[in-house]
Amino acid sequence: MSQTLYIVKIGGNVIDNPEVCSAFLNDFIKLNAPKILVHGGGKVATEIAAKLGIETQMVEGRRITDKAMLDVATMVYGGLVNKNLVAQLQAGGCNAIGLTGADGGIIRSVKRPVKAIDYGFVGDIEAVNDQQINALLYSSLIPVIAPLTYSSEGTMLNTNADTMASATAVAMAKTYKVNLIYCFEKKGVLSNPDDDDAVIASLNPESYANYKNSGAINKGMIPKLDNAFAALEAGVDQVTICHADDLLEAAIGSAGTVITL
Amino acid sequence: MSQTLYIVKIGGNVIDNPEVCSAFLNDFIKLNAPKILVHGGGKVATEIAAKLGIETQMVEGRRITDKAMLDVATMVYGGLVNKNLVAQLQAGGCNAIGLTGADGGIIRSVKRPVKAIDYGFVGDIEAVNDQQINALLYSSLIPVIAPLTYSSEGTMLNTNADTMASATAVAMAKTYKVNLIYCFEKKGVLSNPDDDDAVIASLNPESYANYKNSGAINKGMIPKLDNAFAALEAGVDQVTICHADDLLEAAIGSAGTVITL
Repeated sequence: MSQTLYIVKIGGNVIDNPEVCSAFLNDFIKLNAPKILVHGGGKVATEIAAKLGIETQMVEGRRITDKAMLDVATMVYGGLVNKNLVAQLQAGGCNAIGLTGADGGIIRSVKRPVKAIDYGFVGDIEAVNDQQINALLYSSLIPVIAPLTYSSEGTMLNTNADTMASATAVAMAKTYKVNLIYCFEKKGVLSNPDDDDAVIASLNPESYANYKNSGAINKGMIPKLDNAFAALEAGVDQVTICHADDLLEAAIGSAGTVITL
Repeated sequence: MSQTLYIVKIGGNVIDNPEVCSAFLNDFIKLNAPKILVHGGGKVATEIAAKLGIETQMVEGRRITDKAMLDVATMVYGGLVNKNLVAQLQAGGCNAIGLTGADGGIIRSVKRPVKAIDYGFVGDIEAVNDQQINALLYSSLIPVIAPLTYSSEGTMLNTNADTMASATAVAMAKTYKVNLIYCFEKKGVLSNPDDDDAVIASLNPESYANYKNSGAINKGMIPKLDNAFAALEAGVDQVTICHADDLLEAAIGSAGTVITL
């Protein structure tokens, strides 16, 4: 049977809080298996853009990435956030290597075609180089991946971290039994959005359909879960959605919501 | 006989000029051997710091790196500059991987002790992990190294790119015949500072002493050349100082100043 590879995604809420982040990294270090960390951006990019006089444009809840904002994303996600995570992991004895999709050509994308909305310098993933990622894991390196990819024309592109995590999980499923863990600010998928302790322990397509029909699983969670099921259908072994505090428990299946087919 | 490894350093003057940089990268891509690119910072860090309201403090020609300036260096050198170089190299078919000293723990440093001057978050190199760099080269990756290292406490540290290039060259000399090439804005070491074509083709300790005694080699060049001779004494095979336009010629010994023992 193949070895388990953990692909753990953390969002801005973890990165924005140094104490939560440091506790999370200590748990991540303890996770004793091949592993990859994918991180989101956090508020600092918006703050730095504002200080530089760059306005954040949002259309339908999505950030429009003009050239100035792309430079900020490349600086903040690929530089400041990524390297500080790597330095902290290295200090904890974890042989982290910070990467964007461009590094080693691990995740290539195409600039999103302009339709109703021009998202600007945003990449839609085209190819994940699982052999290159495998070569890094084989050298006992722990990839720490920032939400940036590159195009075959040589430009960087802003890319959604959730999508990068699931695309990487699907590509690595050729070689590993992949456990994809999304860490966020709730304890898991809730059966009652007003009760933070009402965590659904496990979801499969049938129970998911039931929760959707009853309205218990609400609008914001649906694209996340649809993506999770799509990853499972494409070969990922397990997807877990949990609180960033509960990584180790979630890794052994005793916290968060475990999603399977 | 060991294989030749080229370690090429480019400074801010190359990075600040997109056309010069693009031409340089095309030549670097053509260099058909194991190779490492080490890059400096460029003016953009100073410009971004100014826009963010951070003043650049200089003492004796050296930048003082306070926490705010360290964050700018980490963003700009480790993010913006490094990732744009990597994306351009990848688009040209060169399997570049952007690294700081923290990534893979390749170059660890200690925060410079406070003596007469407190340089702030500046690192003095303590250890180069040649085995890790070798593992990357062995996977056919081309390291592109930003002028940043990390401490064992987990903080990033601003570090001189020339020093990172020579420390890496010395460490890699255990395994390779290392040719360290410093690209800068002149055609080489000049025998007459007023004549840009008066390039000294080769220097050894004797001829260097003579040029110093005659005053032909001036103050600014002396620390660069002292470092070059120190690298040669520590096992580096050859050091070349040349113009960024002349990389390929310099790699075969037909441009720039070749420094040997």
